[in-house]
Amino acid sequence: MIRVGLDAMGGDFAPKAAVKGAVMALEALGDECRVVLFGDREPILHILASEGCPADRFDIVATSEVIEMGDHPAKAFQGKPSSSITVGFDHLGRGLIDGFASAGSTGAMMVGSMLVAKPVEGVLRPTIATAVQTLAGSRVVILDIGLNVDCRAEVLEQYALLGSVYAEAVLGIEHPRVALLNIGEEPSKGNAQVKASYDLMLRGSSEGRYNFVGNVEASHIFTGDVADVVVCDGFTGNTILKLCEGLYAINLAKGVKNDFWEGMNYERTGGTPVLGINGVVTIGHGKSTPLAVRNMILATRDAIRSGLVERLQSRFR
Amino acid sequence: MIRVGLDAMGGDFAPKAAVKGAVMALEALGDECRVVLFGDREPILHILASEGCPADRFDIVATSEVIEMGDHPAKAFQGKPSSSITVGFDHLGRGLIDGFASAGSTGAMMVGSMLVAKPVEGVLRPTIATAVQTLAGSRVVILDIGLNVDCRAEVLEQYALLGSVYAEAVLGIEHPRVALLNIGEEPSKGNAQVKASYDLMLRGSSEGRYNFVGNVEASHIFTGDVADVVVCDGFTGNTILKLCEGLYAINLAKGVKNDFWEGMNYERTGGTPVLGINGVVTIGHGKSTPLAVRNMILATRDAIRSGLVERLQSRFR
Repeated sequence: MIRVGLDAMGGDFAPKAAVKGAVMALEALGDECRVVLFGDREPILHILASEGCPADRFDIVATSEVIEMGDHPAKAFQGKPSSSITVGFDHLGRGLIDGFASAGSTGAMMVGSMLVAKPVEGVLRPTIATAVQTLAGSRVVILDIGLNVDCRAEVLEQYALLGSVYAEAVLGIEHPRVALLNIGEEPSKGNAQVKASYDLMLRGSSEGRYNFVGNVEASHIFTGDVADVVVCDGFTGNTILKLCEGLYAINLAKGVKNDFWEGMNYERTGGTPVLGINGVVTIGHGKSTPLAVRNMILATRDAIRSGLVERLQSRFR
Repeated sequence: MIRVGLDAMGGDFAPKAAVKGAVMALEALGDECRVVLFGDREPILHILASEGCPADRFDIVATSEVIEMGDHPAKAFQGKPSSSITVGFDHLGRGLIDGFASAGSTGAMMVGSMLVAKPVEGVLRPTIATAVQTLAGSRVVILDIGLNVDCRAEVLEQYALLGSVYAEAVLGIEHPRVALLNIGEEPSKGNAQVKASYDLMLRGSSEGRYNFVGNVEASHIFTGDVADVVVCDGFTGNTILKLCEGLYAINLAKGVKNDFWEGMNYERTGGTPVLGINGVVTIGHGKSTPLAVRNMILATRDAIRSGLVERLQSRFR
């Protein structure tokens, strides 16, 4: 039995959107997976009832505090021990759940990831990634998407392996093509950071750690024809993501709708996995809808089932 | 009389696309502006004839060499003194033309910009920019878009002024809103480079050098609701541009067509102005079509007419 923990209090529209999303996930989860809800019991039961969903389809761990978006993440994580996020991580740390997902405070989720799940031995900097659908219909993993904004080359090099293991384990891509985001295809291109990273990734690839295919320009990220994993620092990755978000919104306003742009919808991506820690943790968009929560739960389940953490532990050993 | 120099040999489809573009520009240019073509006289005359355009509508400066895309820019610029780009810059330097445009080697165009036009006194690093149409219908200046990939904060701070003067002079935007591209709106956000730049731009703004409005996230670049000028380093700017280029191509393949995305078409943007030098220089996309060349000529004319160079010289004094 796989147990996915969900912060029922996380996100702008919690607990309603979170609980509804959990109900939506039930069908796809089947019998092999159970969702554990962390949050205020009464509102949760009320929403379940209004959804016509028997309460016994879920485990509920009652919590009495919520880490708000304005709270200082580290202080709140420790200062609100009965918060849904802190209690969720406590359950994750004790093995009572196999993964934890929340659309609440990203900062608090990262604090829990670092303090409770802790970095995998050998990983310099855990990171956050996204997996977006490409024109080719495959998915491309982009990392870092906003956590480490000043990255040494050694950190970027490790992203190649983190992204590769994720693509292989969770997305089922064999020998994922790992590329370094750059402003030209030639090895000589780029800033000091990516030039140094290029050399390290060439070596990592020659040592068989992953399949480095060289540089990828931003124009080819979403075609899917160059790379399955795109490595960049958190500043660049976050810029890419936000630019896409902005263009997606403009398209919505312009009435553009097709399968490619629908793949850009954050509701579809299943949240942001935290990579490089000893646990499966997924962070959702603050404005997560029930559909987004549903897909975040499924992505968390997929990561648990894939043995992602064990694979990372063995590849970084 | 304004004289715009055009490299008739520059670009993947030269001289045909270049000369055709020059012919297309005639109507919009009227009598106050004359295009000077630099290139092989015979092919130019042949193309003009096939376009049904009298040769005396242009001045032609015959050149006998071409700087190829594979050439080393600095070596070729000096080693091919009869090339269309080198001769063009020679004319620019001697005041025989008022501006120079080419869709040829970007590297050679930058060499000419630095060696012949030379940086404006006080400018640390000349740069290249683009002006893209926003959802609001205005245009947003983005700089740097690929030249200086490792920027000190002092360089980024100057971009604020370079972009501001361009937006004011050439695009006619009063008190252009200058923003720093960042991954959050708050001053505390970003990497070390942008944090340092933020402080400098705050000071520059308080001294009345430009109108700094703070950080802009990539999601708001193209809405036009936050900024008229977006400052970033060349790595980030080039990534933004290439990402848009890639999404534009995907949209084309998907049959998406509307005025917003049409504004992303490089053929419409009028090429890339080089900012911070003592001369008006525009660089076109290598694959420039006649329409792109036409708009590059008009953008060069606009920059000349606006007194851009004199304004920059006075603002950096």
